[in-house]
Amino acid sequence: MLNVTVIGGSGYTGGEVLRILSSHPGARVVHVVSRTHAGKPVGEVFPNLRQCCEAVFCEPDPSRYLPDTDVVFCCAPHGTAMGIAREIVGKAKLIDLGPDFRFRDPAVFEEWYGKPHEAPELAQEAVYGLVELHASEIKSAGIVGNPGCYPTCSVLALAPLLAYGLIDPESVVIDAKSGVSGAGRSPGLAYHFPEVNDSIRPYGIPGHRHTPEIEQELSRLAGRQVKCSFSPHLVPMTRGILVTCYARLLGWPEVGSDRAGAAGSRDIRDTGDIIALYREYYEFRPFVRVLGPGELPHTKAVYGSNFCDVTARVDPRTGRVIAMAAIDNLVKGAAGQAVQNMNVMFGLDERTGLYAPGLYP
Amino acid sequence: MLNVTVIGGSGYTGGEVLRILSSHPGARVVHVVSRTHAGKPVGEVFPNLRQCCEAVFCEPDPSRYLPDTDVVFCCAPHGTAMGIAREIVGKAKLIDLGPDFRFRDPAVFEEWYGKPHEAPELAQEAVYGLVELHASEIKSAGIVGNPGCYPTCSVLALAPLLAYGLIDPESVVIDAKSGVSGAGRSPGLAYHFPEVNDSIRPYGIPGHRHTPEIEQELSRLAGRQVKCSFSPHLVPMTRGILVTCYARLLGWPEVGSDRAGAAGSRDIRDTGDIIALYREYYEFRPFVRVLGPGELPHTKAVYGSNFCDVTARVDPRTGRVIAMAAIDNLVKGAAGQAVQNMNVMFGLDERTGLYAPGLYP
Amino acid sequence: MLNVTVIGGSGYTGGEVLRILSSHPGARVVHVVSRTHAGKPVGEVFPNLRQCCEAVFCEPDPSRYLPDTDVVFCCAPHGTAMGIAREIVGKAKLIDLGPDFRFRDPAVFEEWYGKPHEAPELAQEAVYGLVELHASEIKSAGIVGNPGCYPTCSVLALAPLLAYGLIDPESVVIDAKSGVSGAGRSPGLAYHFPEVNDSIRPYGIPGHRHTPEIEQELSRLAGRQVKCSFSPHLVPMTRGILVTCYARLLGWPEVGSDRAGAAGSRDIRDTGDIIALYREYYEFRPFVRVLGPGELPHTKAVYGSNFCDVTARVDPRTGRVIAMAAIDNLVKGAAGQAVQNMNVMFGLDERTGLYAPGLYP
Amino acid sequence: MLNVTVIGGSGYTGGEVLRILSSHPGARVVHVVSRTHAGKPVGEVFPNLRQCCEAVFCEPDPSRYLPDTDVVFCCAPHGTAMGIAREIVGKAKLIDLGPDFRFRDPAVFEEWYGKPHEAPELAQEAVYGLVELHASEIKSAGIVGNPGCYPTCSVLALAPLLAYGLIDPESVVIDAKSGVSGAGRSPGLAYHFPEVNDSIRPYGIPGHRHTPEIEQELSRLAGRQVKCSFSPHLVPMTRGILVTCYARLLGWPEVGSDRAGAAGSRDIRDTGDIIALYREYYEFRPFVRVLGPGELPHTKAVYGSNFCDVTARVDPRTGRVIAMAAIDNLVKGAAGQAVQNMNVMFGLDERTGLYAPGLYP
Repeated sequence: MLNVTVIGGSGYTGGEVLRILSSHPGARVVHVVSRTHAGKPVGEVFPNLRQCCEAVFCEPDPSRYLPDTDVVFCCAPHGTAMGIAREIVGKAKLIDLGPDFRFRDPAVFEEWYGKPHEAPELAQEAVYGLVELHASEIKSAGIVGNPGCYPTCSVLALAPLLAYGLIDPESVVIDAKSGVSGAGRSPGLAYHFPEVNDSIRPYGIPGHRHTPEIEQELSRLAGRQVKCSFSPHLVPMTRGILVTCYARLLGWPEVGSDRAGAAGSRDIRDTGDIIALYREYYEFRPFVRVLGPGELPHTKAVYGSNFCDVTARVDPRTGRVIAMAAIDNLVKGAAGQAVQNMNVMFGLDERTGLYAPGLYP
Repeated sequence: MLNVTVIGGSGYTGGEVLRILSSHPGARVVHVVSRTHAGKPVGEVFPNLRQCCEAVFCEPDPSRYLPDTDVVFCCAPHGTAMGIAREIVGKAKLIDLGPDFRFRDPAVFEEWYGKPHEAPELAQEAVYGLVELHASEIKSAGIVGNPGCYPTCSVLALAPLLAYGLIDPESVVIDAKSGVSGAGRSPGLAYHFPEVNDSIRPYGIPGHRHTPEIEQELSRLAGRQVKCSFSPHLVPMTRGILVTCYARLLGWPEVGSDRAGAAGSRDIRDTGDIIALYREYYEFRPFVRVLGPGELPHTKAVYGSNFCDVTARVDPRTGRVIAMAAIDNLVKGAAGQAVQNMNVMFGLDERTGLYAPGLYP
Repeated sequence: MLNVTVIGGSGYTGGEVLRILSSHPGARVVHVVSRTHAGKPVGEVFPNLRQCCEAVFCEPDPSRYLPDTDVVFCCAPHGTAMGIAREIVGKAKLIDLGPDFRFRDPAVFEEWYGKPHEAPELAQEAVYGLVELHASEIKSAGIVGNPGCYPTCSVLALAPLLAYGLIDPESVVIDAKSGVSGAGRSPGLAYHFPEVNDSIRPYGIPGHRHTPEIEQELSRLAGRQVKCSFSPHLVPMTRGILVTCYARLLGWPEVGSDRAGAAGSRDIRDTGDIIALYREYYEFRPFVRVLGPGELPHTKAVYGSNFCDVTARVDPRTGRVIAMAAIDNLVKGAAGQAVQNMNVMFGLDERTGLYAPGLYP
Repeated sequence: MLNVTVIGGSGYTGGEVLRILSSHPGARVVHVVSRTHAGKPVGEVFPNLRQCCEAVFCEPDPSRYLPDTDVVFCCAPHGTAMGIAREIVGKAKLIDLGPDFRFRDPAVFEEWYGKPHEAPELAQEAVYGLVELHASEIKSAGIVGNPGCYPTCSVLALAPLLAYGLIDPESVVIDAKSGVSGAGRSPGLAYHFPEVNDSIRPYGIPGHRHTPEIEQELSRLAGRQVKCSFSPHLVPMTRGILVTCYARLLGWPEVGSDRAGAAGSRDIRDTGDIIALYREYYEFRPFVRVLGPGELPHTKAVYGSNFCDVTARVDPRTGRVIAMAAIDNLVKGAAGQAVQNMNVMFGLDERTGLYAPGLYP
């Protein structure tokens, strides 16, 4: 039985880690750290956890929680994990749900988050925790940078296209739509119910901080530097991310020509071919569900679950492929993926405590 | 391992039974019956169940599903269960999620549902499946009438007040609010998104069909015939029921008097006294969470779970008590309660496969 | 052409006053006061008003805005209007959208708002601005206390029943449901989108501050002191209030008896009789629409309009009448009603600039 | 005073025409045609119109409504207008809110709508009713094909970029998001509240019927044949369309180069330059509001109004421009635009009866 400490346990991702671990057969929460709520029962802050989680928030003092901790989930704001990582390493494994350990190159962190990395040597050996791409490295990692919600969904949508060399990497456009829980639990006018409800808005265009994270992974898949357009939107829903990705199929005739095309290194002629490749690529990845030609991903189908639903369509009129994916931003996009990483890091089946359907409707 | 057959498995309650049973350690679904969808994989109708439920819908032929079935969940429209009950009885247990077996008196069914009961002798021996009130009868029942969503929430809110004789039974007013999934999965103008979204509406006032079911249970608690006002409202949310119940405290001075009062057979002087009684009443009922004086039930706190959050307030200005409760209409109000009944009927701990927190937010 | 100054113009009610006046043929906004936003164009704070309202927020200095102002709309938090009323009176008319001038008895204000009234002599001569009940007093008022959103809806729902003496005034229970804009534009966890969306919650039970305002008006209608239960709920919608009111019909046989009853001073035997009385009572009130036996009020039907939809049902089983009403809390419950008051105070037709349908859907 | 007949008056666009015309100073509704609802008062079908529209639905008999009609709004399903157009032409003007008269080339209609055009000679002389682009032709048109909701928003977002030759026309990707009222008032599982609420889904990818309409207009602006990707999404909101459009800036260095670029025939170096061009292009178009560098369009800002909010951003990292626009699909995307067309066709100021702010929040 793994002993887990959750730091920053009073935000949405922290609460979701507690929820998932409350029925995990191989792990138990021993400490929940929150400076703000120290002394309060967890159930007062997360009403769903009443009677289900007996923990009481405690102060952020590593000398108290580290001795009996196997793994630390850091759910605190960016900048927290890099400040405590050196203290944790060697004593417990660290899974950071923030961005501190997502970038191989600490300079990228510095550029996009506006502050120097405090533990660059650890950043370089940390592993990017997208199990679908990096399971073997994660297995032996001491620190895992748990992917951001948008990057998780975007990279899973596009990975097969880049891995098989089917698209022009410079042509990638990612139009992303997120539920409001992705913005965290701190209230603000932008997330005030009457401002958000019944309305959709773009934000952070261009230049959202998840862009370099997406580009890091797309570049690794493409084997060359990739720059893409990434545009997030706020949707009036609680949970969920949907990405709609556009890219030009390689080897496809110029738009406007009538000749049928065949893309890339594989002979891709239509949607059926693309879907077959996606199925091949994700064959042994239990949390990726590749949808057939009659179904499109939507966020309700993954609500509350760790699944990523993904599919793609070839548009012969324009020579583009449109790849789409949906996740629950708090599960596969945060807490569920963190538990999946824990499972892999400790030799458990990656599905342990996670492989269950979400709610519908 | 119990073998389960789900009839009418393509509606919301059927889908929810499948979802819950997909991670139940002591039961497995062997047949899912749906005339409409016979031949289709369940995951095509419930996208959350893709990869989680391998079943394929089959035709409604008892000779096919009864031989290897221990318990039948009937999730079909009212009138279905009473037509097939005689065939099932003796071969398998029957849990009907419709109203056919909720009334001790078949004449009440006939009056409110406008058709004669087809198996009145079975109706009389069926047990009303509110585990919190009738666990011992359920244990030995062959047929359980699984309570309606509104009655579940209303009765749990009011039970301690009537059981302890604190209120005037004639004074009970129940104002209920429900999410739209309570209306089922058949589309109609009244549930068309643009008509429902961002709006609240009352319906079926007075005379909703859940009224006699509520009154049957309140009458049993009160030990006399009770008639109450019950008013349902449609709220722009997917899941959840909240009831706000009003009743006059017995022994309380007339409204308008300044003298402090003491209600009923127990000395009830304030909200704290009432909450203490609720805690006593529900002490051994794991799915009822009695909230303290600083918290009120809301549907998000029970979203996707089998819990019922309940509390009450004394209003000394008016001499009334206001009792409130919240459930997820598809879980504690339908499928979860059905599984809870199954657990009790087969000697399992009632919490098996059910005792987990819901989603928040 | 009336010259209007709006104080506290950056909240939802202030914005709504600006919206409505932007197409009012007999009034124009000359000053919009907001300490926070002084210097900013109104369209930056209310994106709907871009190009439609050329005003720029100015500092709260009466010597600047009073000289060319005919009427002041005070949309600032409670306590503001009573502090500036003496300065305004005699120079301009004052319509306060807060509670300062709603109570005939300043002691009631003090009791419920926890501070002494700063202008009690003005409070006593101010008029409660519910045009449907007090049009003739409003006509000559210098200060109007614009009714709260809940009281507007509750009093309009119940007025005919009390005016005609049909119900026991002590039996009134008001269960109210409101959209989130009623809580104002200041963000807070309780109104953070993910906390509110897809959920309903009661709050302020018992003891919401709108209770004494409702009781003041019900008492005037009943000709005696009335105390009622009033329970507000927060509904996941932007605008709208629905009230469901319960009361015991006088002269109706005890519940449980089979004898048909006849209530009160009029011979009320069924819903048709009650509706006929409502139609008679509201015959000359253009903004009250009395719905027939086939329709119930819902908030979408009044969205963005100044109408109040109202109806009632007799429940012969329980001897109760259930009265229901719906308004848009920001229009008939605040800004629209304020403009309606302005129209009456300045001798315009009360419908001027207001008599238009809301949006549907 | 213009006499208006509305055909197909029981859907959402028909209801919206009635709402807008109910306060139009220069037009009045004389007939509302609906086979389904013939004989019913309009207020029974559109509860917002109670007391605001005295009309009664009548049968679809041109000999009854044409004699006193100046202009017909056809809000019926596609295929209706082309069947009755010959009868109307010469007697009244026709504004078709469906697709029958949107295509210069009847073959395009046939290809995308799967049936031959029944009045191809009229289709060729009909005018595409986007006032912002075609005001002078609309002025003298006998038949106007009122643009679709998605095309209106997409074309207004992209027009300046193509008109000034700033982008590669082959690179255009339009990611569109719509509220559910765009799907009409006929219920179906895809629009059933519990299926839509709290979820976002793509649909019709690729190949939505609004694609050729968008391409027709983009091609006219570009002066050459344009093919674009157009992907619609269903958002859990009642009204509103947001489009996010991506295109490659011409003359911009290849992605990945560090050299700053200058796009197209104008010297476009940054977002400020683009916005200045948009302001120039839309200077005399009252319903297009060009937002500055600190604001992005969102649907709530145009809710219930005829405005289109639009802006663009240059992304120097990728050499792309991102153009965004928001409208209310039922107003500027349907009924409001139709009334704007009527105004222009009859020599009224295009703003008549339309120039008012929407609701906020």
